[in-house]
Amino acid sequence: MAMFMDVHTGFFGTTHEELDAAHRADLRIEAEEGVHFERAWLDPELGKVFCLSSGPSKEAVMRVHERAGHPAAEIYELTVEV
Amino acid sequence: MAMFMDVHTGFFGTTHEELDAAHRADLRIEAEEGVHFERAWLDPELGKVFCLSSGPSKEAVMRVHERAGHPAAEIYELTVEV
Repeated sequence: MAMFMDVHTGFFGTTHEELDAAHRADLRIEAEEGVHFERAWLDPELGKVFCLSSGPSKEAVMRVHERAGHPAAEIYELTVEV
Repeated sequence: MAMFMDVHTGFFGTTHEELDAAHRADLRIEAEEGVHFERAWLDPELGKVFCLSSGPSKEAVMRVHERAGHPAAEIYELTVEV
């Protein structure tokens, strides 16, 4: 199982309720792709969302976000953590 | 106390030991700026580092990284977390 950080852009002015709804949409289907989204952080002023997840591949993580209706702009595999 | 995610670029091929040394350099001086770096994640293939921190301001976080010799390319204030 690998770890990933994906980045969404354009989430200007997004609220806690909206981010929570988007995150729950991921959680509902993530198991079908073998993915788990651990946490998501939002900067509503600059419109950025960072999602930390574990899963089998970048493609699997991206598929969950796409199927939930919010594809990510970038994704990184985190092989080192301190 | 606010939360921040900063992003470094160009860390291609960086090892766990090197990231740990950079992180410890931050930890040694962070208290002088009222900052705490919680975790850092690295994608050595794409050269990206994500640092999660808490502190009084973006400027304070950036100052710690600059003084430690590794200025960040971007920083975001994370006002929402799920």
